[in-house]
Amino acid sequence: MNYDANNIFARIIRGELPAIKVYEDDFTLAFMDIMPQMPGHLLVLPKVPAVTLYQLPDDAATAVLQTLKKVGKALEQAMGVDGSSVFQHNGSYAGQTVPHLHFHLVPGPLKALKAHASEKMDSDQLDAIAERIRRAIANPAV
Amino acid sequence: MNYDANNIFARIIRGELPAIKVYEDDFTLAFMDIMPQMPGHLLVLPKVPAVTLYQLPDDAATAVLQTLKKVGKALEQAMGVDGSSVFQHNGSYAGQTVPHLHFHLVPGPLKALKAHASEKMDSDQLDAIAERIRRAIANPAV
Repeated sequence: MNYDANNIFARIIRGELPAIKVYEDDFTLAFMDIMPQMPGHLLVLPKVPAVTLYQLPDDAATAVLQTLKKVGKALEQAMGVDGSSVFQHNGSYAGQTVPHLHFHLVPGPLKALKAHASEKMDSDQLDAIAERIRRAIANPAV
Repeated sequence: MNYDANNIFARIIRGELPAIKVYEDDFTLAFMDIMPQMPGHLLVLPKVPAVTLYQLPDDAATAVLQTLKKVGKALEQAMGVDGSSVFQHNGSYAGQTVPHLHFHLVPGPLKALKAHASEKMDSDQLDAIAERIRRAIANPAV
């Protein structure tokens, strides 16, 4: 799969499309999945153009794992749960729908996932969860 | 969850228990899941003691992602498929069963996963798949 610079996540990274962001730095971005498979479902991605994990340069891989750690811990705190799961698809055969590498981060087990893209969550609800996550990132529990 | 130095993966890392390894370096280990959720199911883990992603030092995180890239690409090649998925559970609430951080790597979509721990795969079958993966690691497709 070749990289398409106009994929939806590339456009979100460039600020051409809106997203409910919870964290951003020079190398990574984390925002709410608007069709969450459970409440609190986040997407974490490197800004560098890469379709799959296998195209990701090592420095970008390090950056995205640092963000997964920071945001995932905050997600547990924000949702009041003691566990979270990460999942990531490489290639359409494996279920990847947007051709820009992204990690899914959810506050619970994979067996609790609803089918994706089944329904959009109300944006007020998404905003409220995002604000809790942002506060947890700013004030991590010790 | 505190780290228990006698968990099964710690004992595999120390060589006290057997495993069908496909890759090992100073910082990481990859081996066959003996109760695979699909054929080719691998576990990739850092050697450093950490229960969850949130306890993993950044240098170990970099090492484990490098191994995921190397082994995941080889897994696709070995199984003759054009896609793979990574998943990882933090905490028993999220479905983590062994308290040493591990990434699952499978040659297909999560929706194709069978329930875990349902049945052991025959060790000859596991060995044959492992050998294909080792060969693909040694001879990556360009």
